[in-house]
Amino acid sequence: MEVKIESIPEGTITSPEGFHAGATCAGINKKAKDKLDLGILFSEVPCAATALFTTNRIKAAPVVLSQERLQQGRALALVVNSGCANACTGEKGLAHAAEMAELTAEGIGISPEDVLVASTGVIGQPLPMKRIRTAIEQVILSRDGGHELAKAMLTTDTFAKETAVTVKIDGNEFAIGGVAKGSGMIHPNLATLLCFLTTDAVVEMDFLKSALKKAVDVSFNMISIDGDTSTNDMVLLMANGLTGSEAIIQGSDQADAFQQALDQVCIYLARYVARDGEGATKLIEVTVGGAPTIAEARSAARTVATSSLVKAAVHGADPNWGRVMAAVGRSGVEVVESKLDLYIGDIPVVKAGRLLPFGKRSVIQLLKGSEVSINLNLNLGSGNATAWGCDLSEEYVTINSQYMT
Amino acid sequence: MEVKIESIPEGTITSPEGFHAGATCAGINKKAKDKLDLGILFSEVPCAATALFTTNRIKAAPVVLSQERLQQGRALALVVNSGCANACTGEKGLAHAAEMAELTAEGIGISPEDVLVASTGVIGQPLPMKRIRTAIEQVILSRDGGHELAKAMLTTDTFAKETAVTVKIDGNEFAIGGVAKGSGMIHPNLATLLCFLTTDAVVEMDFLKSALKKAVDVSFNMISIDGDTSTNDMVLLMANGLTGSEAIIQGSDQADAFQQALDQVCIYLARYVARDGEGATKLIEVTVGGAPTIAEARSAARTVATSSLVKAAVHGADPNWGRVMAAVGRSGVEVVESKLDLYIGDIPVVKAGRLLPFGKRSVIQLLKGSEVSINLNLNLGSGNATAWGCDLSEEYVTINSQYMT
Repeated sequence: MEVKIESIPEGTITSPEGFHAGATCAGINKKAKDKLDLGILFSEVPCAATALFTTNRIKAAPVVLSQERLQQGRALALVVNSGCANACTGEKGLAHAAEMAELTAEGIGISPEDVLVASTGVIGQPLPMKRIRTAIEQVILSRDGGHELAKAMLTTDTFAKETAVTVKIDGNEFAIGGVAKGSGMIHPNLATLLCFLTTDAVVEMDFLKSALKKAVDVSFNMISIDGDTSTNDMVLLMANGLTGSEAIIQGSDQADAFQQALDQVCIYLARYVARDGEGATKLIEVTVGGAPTIAEARSAARTVATSSLVKAAVHGADPNWGRVMAAVGRSGVEVVESKLDLYIGDIPVVKAGRLLPFGKRSVIQLLKGSEVSINLNLNLGSGNATAWGCDLSEEYVTINSQYMT
Repeated sequence: MEVKIESIPEGTITSPEGFHAGATCAGINKKAKDKLDLGILFSEVPCAATALFTTNRIKAAPVVLSQERLQQGRALALVVNSGCANACTGEKGLAHAAEMAELTAEGIGISPEDVLVASTGVIGQPLPMKRIRTAIEQVILSRDGGHELAKAMLTTDTFAKETAVTVKIDGNEFAIGGVAKGSGMIHPNLATLLCFLTTDAVVEMDFLKSALKKAVDVSFNMISIDGDTSTNDMVLLMANGLTGSEAIIQGSDQADAFQQALDQVCIYLARYVARDGEGATKLIEVTVGGAPTIAEARSAARTVATSSLVKAAVHGADPNWGRVMAAVGRSGVEVVESKLDLYIGDIPVVKAGRLLPFGKRSVIQLLKGSEVSINLNLNLGSGNATAWGCDLSEEYVTINSQYMT
C-alpha cells in the first residue's frame, strides 16, 4: 500500500473540496480598526464534525455553545471573531454567541443548529453586537477565502498559520487543511489557541474523534507558551466527505494514512504557534527518548519546554544545561540521574548524568539559532515524545504588563 | 491557657538558647570574592532534627547526604555554602559533601554523623574543595552568629531573611528562630530555597515532624517564584530542648502554641522569599476562600500566584482581572463561574461571576503598591488558603538569560 502525502502550495482550510470561507473587518477592537476580525467557514454539504475544547472550568460562551451543538456530530459552518473572547459574560454572552450563529445561518440559508461559534480576545467584555451584525452580512465566501479567515482569527500573532496536504492512497485522494492562531491579542491577553481543520475525506465518526484526539496529543498538547490555559481553546475537525463514498474506519490502511496526514498538519501548525509565542525570538524543540512510557516522555518534554528558567537561558543563548536537568527532574517522571544523556542540538553535553567536556562556543552558537533543539535520553525504556516551546524574552513581559494601562 | 507569641528584635537562628553560628568568605564564586559564602550552625547539645527535602528526582549531593543522616532524627551541626549547588556532580559530589561534614565535625569536636550539609548555587560544577577546607577552619562560632549565617547562604537575594519569636505559655518559655534564602545566585540559577529553623523547646519527635510538615504546607509550599523546583531545596528544624524538661507532644496546649509560632516564623520567611524573587518589584498575596476543601483552596491560590500572565499584569499595574479568572479556572479545582467573587485588595471587581462597575483608577492605584492582594471567594465550601508570589518583570528575564555568557 503506497501512501503519498504532499503539502499543497499555499494550502489552507479551503483547500479540501467544498469548503468556502471569507472574512471582514468588524472593528471589534477599536484600536485595530482595519484588521480582519470576523470570519466564516462553510461546507457545501453537511460535515461529520468533532472538536476538543479547553479544560478550563471557566468556559467562554462560544465554547459552551459549540460544545453543545457538536453533540450531534455534525456541522455546516463556523463563525469566528478575534478582539473579544466573549468569556465571563454570563447569560448575555451566551445570547450573543447564539445570535452570531443565527445571523451566520441566515446569511447562508442553513439551520442555526449547524453553525459553530469561536471567539478569541479579551476576557470579560461584551461583544459589540451592533458591529458584528453588520459585519456578518458583509462576509463574502469563496473557495480560496481560507487565507482571509486565517488572518481574521489572529490577535498578537505576527503571521498567519495555515497549511494543507493531499493524501494519495490506493487510488483514492483526499485533502486535509488547517488554520490556527496562537498566543495573545492586539491587546494581549491569554495564549488562546484556536485551530480549525477541514477534510474532504469520508470519515466514520468514531475514527474521526479518535484521530483528532491522537493528532492533538502529539501537536497542540505538546506546545506551551506560558503555561496558562485559555477559556476559549478549541480545535475543530470537519469532514465533508466530498471525495469518496466509502468511509475511512479505524484499523484500515486509509485510516493510518489519514492519521499520518492529520498529525503532520497539526504538528506543522503547532510548531508555528510555538514559534510565534508572545515576545518569542526562537522555537525550542525538546525531544525525550528512553522514557518508561510515552506518557512520561510527553510529560518530561513538556516540563522542559515550559520551564521559565530554561526558556530564559535559551533566550540569552546561555549554555546553562543544569536547568534542563532540574526541569526534567521535577517533571514527576521516573528519572535516574546516572543514566541521563543530554544533547544540545547534536552536541553531547551530559552522558550518564555527568558533564562532558563540551565545546561551550559551539553550544552557544547553536543556542543563537532561530530553532534550538534540546534532546534528552532517559535510557529507561522506549517511550519518546517531542514538545515545542519558545524562549522567554523581556518583550513577553512588556507585552503582558501593558494591556489596559 | 494564655499564649503569648512575641517577635524578638533582630531575632535570628541563634536567638534560641544554645545555638551558635558563624560564617566566612571562602571565595566559592570567583566573581564575588568578598561575599560570605560558607556558614556553620552548631547546638551545644544534641538536637531532635527533621527536615523536608526537594521532590526533584535529581537531588544534589548534600540533599542525599543530609536525608540519609536525618534518618537517625538527630543532629548537632550544619554546614552550608552558597555559590555552588554540588548537584549533578556524581560520586565526587557525594565525597565532597561528606568531606565538608567531616571537616566541620573535626573543627567542633563532634562526630561527622551529626553534621548536616546544605549547598546552593550553580548546578553541575564541583565544589572548590581546597578553598572550602581552608574556609571551614576559619569559621568562628558565636551566640549571635546567626546574622552572618543568614548572609552566607544568600545568592541573588537582595536581603537576608531571618526572624525569631518567643513563646510564653503556662509558665514555660521557649524560642523559635529561622533563616531562609530564596531565588537565584550571584550567577543566577535556580530558585533554590534553603530554610533552617531552630528551637530551644523540648519537642517529641513525631510531633516535631508533623509540626514542620504543617508549617511548610502553609508557608514554603504556598510560595512560587517561577514554578521551577530546585535540586537543593531543604527546610530543616532542630530542637535542642535547652529550656524545658517535659517534651511537647501532639494534642497538648503547648503543641498548639508551638505550631502557631512555627507557622508564624515560616510564613514570615516565606513572604520575604517571595517578595525577594528574582527581578521582583512587589509581593503578590492571593487568598482563596469558599473552596470545597483546603487542598483545593491551596491549589487555586497557588495557580493564580504562579500564572505568568497574572504576574506580568501585576507588574504593569494592569487591572486585567480576566487573567485571574482564567488562572483559577485552569487550576483543576471545582469552580462555578456564576458563584465566583473577586476582589483586588478590598475593591470588589467580580460578583457572582459578573464584572462589577469597579473604579479602574482605584484598582490601578492598589496594583501600583509594593504589596498586591488578590482575593477570591469560590462560594462552594469552607476551604481557604493563602499563597504568595511576586510580579514577573523584564529584569527577571534579563537576570536569567545572562548567566554564562
